Amino acid sequence: MFNKSTFLDSIWHKNIGHTPIWLMRQAGRYLPEYREVRNKAGSFLKLCKNPDLATEVTMQPLHRFDLDAAILFSDILVVPEAMGMKLDFIENEGPKFDTQISTTKDIDNLNIEEINHKLEYVFQTIKNLKATLPSNIPLIGFSGSPFTLLCYMLEGGASKNYLTVKHWLYTKPELTHKLLTKITIAVVDYLNGQIKSGVNAIMLFDSWGGILTDDLYTKFSLNYMNDIISRLQLEYNGHVIPSIIFTKGGGIWLDKIDTIGADVIGLDWTINIKDARKIIRSTALQGNLDPVLLASGNINAIKNEAKRILDNYRQINNSISGHIFNLGHGILPMTNPDHVKFLIDFVHEYSSN
Amino acid sequence: MFNKSTFLDSIWHKNIGHTPIWLMRQAGRYLPEYREVRNKAGSFLKLCKNPDLATEVTMQPLHRFDLDAAILFSDILVVPEAMGMKLDFIENEGPKFDTQISTTKDIDNLNIEEINHKLEYVFQTIKNLKATLPSNIPLIGFSGSPFTLLCYMLEGGASKNYLTVKHWLYTKPELTHKLLTKITIAVVDYLNGQIKSGVNAIMLFDSWGGILTDDLYTKFSLNYMNDIISRLQLEYNGHVIPSIIFTKGGGIWLDKIDTIGADVIGLDWTINIKDARKIIRSTALQGNLDPVLLASGNINAIKNEAKRILDNYRQINNSISGHIFNLGHGILPMTNPDHVKFLIDFVHEYSSN
Repeated sequence: MFNKSTFLDSIWHKNIGHTPIWLMRQAGRYLPEYREVRNKAGSFLKLCKNPDLATEVTMQPLHRFDLDAAILFSDILVVPEAMGMKLDFIENEGPKFDTQISTTKDIDNLNIEEINHKLEYVFQTIKNLKATLPSNIPLIGFSGSPFTLLCYMLEGGASKNYLTVKHWLYTKPELTHKLLTKITIAVVDYLNGQIKSGVNAIMLFDSWGGILTDDLYTKFSLNYMNDIISRLQLEYNGHVIPSIIFTKGGGIWLDKIDTIGADVIGLDWTINIKDARKIIRSTALQGNLDPVLLASGNINAIKNEAKRILDNYRQINNSISGHIFNLGHGILPMTNPDHVKFLIDFVHEYSSN
Repeated sequence: MFNKSTFLDSIWHKNIGHTPIWLMRQAGRYLPEYREVRNKAGSFLKLCKNPDLATEVTMQPLHRFDLDAAILFSDILVVPEAMGMKLDFIENEGPKFDTQISTTKDIDNLNIEEINHKLEYVFQTIKNLKATLPSNIPLIGFSGSPFTLLCYMLEGGASKNYLTVKHWLYTKPELTHKLLTKITIAVVDYLNGQIKSGVNAIMLFDSWGGILTDDLYTKFSLNYMNDIISRLQLEYNGHVIPSIIFTKGGGIWLDKIDTIGADVIGLDWTINIKDARKIIRSTALQGNLDPVLLASGNINAIKNEAKRILDNYRQINNSISGHIFNLGHGILPMTNPDHVKFLIDFVHEYSSN
C-alpha cells in the first residue's frame, strides 16, 4: 500500500532514516493560500463541506513543505453539527452553536442515525485525497474526543472556566454519561466511515480533558476514548490503522492514558519527552514543540528547541523510531511559513545524523 | 506565639484534630460585604493601598467562616506598580499596565531601591491584622513568583498565548534573566518586609509557570523561586516562618519543585493528591479542590469531592497531618458563600473522625 512511510514506520518502531514530522492544523490560517481558498468558500464551515476545496487546502502545506503525513482538513465540530446543532464560526471568536444542550429532551433530539449520511462530504474529501496524495504520504483522519465535543455542546462554544460542563459532570453524572454515550456512538461510526474511505491513521483530539480532576478525566474522557479505540475497525485492506490519542494537559496522566491501547500518544509541550518515555515504555510518542515558539521565536531558537526534543528522545530511547515530531498544540495563525519550513527541514536533517 | 494553630501544626507534621482549610482569594468578590468595601474604596488598587479597608476585607471571611488561616488582602501586581509601572484594574477585564517592559532601558528604569518604602501600606495592613487576628489564626503573606510578575510586565496584562513572554524567553534569555533578577531582589525585600511586619507564613503564587516547557520552567521560574526561598529571613521572634510555593499546572514537575526546599507545595485540582504524595514524600501539601466545583456544584457534589480528596490523602499518608485543604486556584466571583461555609465545616468535621 505504501511506498515506505516514515510516519507509519516510526509508529511501528521500524528502522527509519529520519524522524517524521507533521503539524497539528498544518492546513490553516498561517498560509496565505489557505486564507484565499477560505475566502472563496465564503465561510469556514462551507470550506469543510466542499470536498474539492477541502482537498485543496489539505494539500497546500504538502506543496510547500516536506511533511511526512497529511491530515484531513475538517473541524471536530462537524460531528455535533451533523447531529443537528446549528454551527457558526465567528471571525476571531471561534465556534458558536445557536443553542446549547440543556435537557434530556435536547439529548434525545440529537440525531445520530444519519451521521455518516450527513458527513458524506468528509468521506468524499478523503477519497479525493487518497487519489491525490503520493504513495508515501499517509492521510490522518480524526475526531474530537467525546468529552471535548461535550464541552462545546454544553457551553455552546469555547469557555473560560467550563462552569456549565463541570456543573453537569458534578451534579448530573447520569445525564452526562447518556450524552457522552450518544456522542461516542456517533464518533465510532464517523471514524469507521473515515477508515472505510481510506484514511491511514486516526487521531482523537481531547483538547479539554486537561481541565478535569484525575477522577473525572478517567470517568468522563479517558473511558470514552478507550471505548472508541476498542470499537474501531482498525484494519483495512489488510493494513492496521494506527490510533493516536492526545489530551492537552494530560502529562500527569500518561500512565493511565497508555492503558487504553492507542498506538501513539500525543504530548503537549509542557512535559519533557524524556520523562514521557520513562512512563510510556514503548507506545510511540507524538509532539512536543511549543507552538508559541514557532509563532514568536526566531530560527535559532526554533533550532535549539527542536534539537533539545530530539536529543532528549534519542538519549532515552536509543533510536529515533517511535517518535513523530509535532507541535504540542495547533499551529498559531501568526506563524511565519518560512519558520515552518525551517523546522521541518531541520528535524529531518538533524535526526538523520 | 500561637495558641495552637492547626494550619502551622499541619505544615510541621504535628498531631492535629482536623485538616486545616483556607481558600485562595477567600477575601474577594464572591462576598457581598467585600463588594461594598471595594465600592467605597473607589477602585481595587485604592482598596489594596488603604490599610484600614484592606484589614477589613481580610477579616471578612473570618467573621463568616471557621477558617484556619487568614491571607493578607493585596494583589501580586503591587510589586511592579511599586517599581514604577502604572497599573489599572479594569472591571471584568483584569489588570492592565499603561505600558509594557520592552527594552533594556525599561528594565533599568524600574526602581527597586524604594520598594519597601512604596509598599509601606502593605506592612501597615499586616501590623493592623496582627493586632486584630485571634492568636490561633496565622496570617499568610504572599508575592507573585518572579516569572508570573514578568508575564504581566512583558504583556502589559493578562494574555492568551503569552507570545511576547515566550519571545523573550526563547530569543532574549539574557535580558529576561536581567529582568527576573531585578524582580527577584524586589520580591525578596518585599517578603522580608512582610515577615518583619508579622506574617506567619509566606506564599509564592506562580500562576503562569505551567505555560512553559519543562526546561524553561526550571530556568525561568523554579530557579528564581529557589533563590527567593534561600534568601528569605524565615525566622522571626524565634519562630520559623514556613514557605508555600504553588505553580498552577505544575503537577508534572512536582519532583523538581520539591527540591527547592519550600515547606508546603500547592497543588491545583488536576493531580490526584495521592499521586502527589507518592512523588513528594514528606513536604506538606496544599489543595486541591476544583474552584469551578465550588462555583457550579451543589452541596452534595462538594461533599463528595472534598471527601474524595481527604480519603485519598489519608489512604497514602496514614495521618491527616501534612495537608492543608484549599482550592486548586482562586475562588471564583460567582461562588455562593453558603457553599463555602458548607465546605469549610465539612472538611473540619469529616477529617476529625
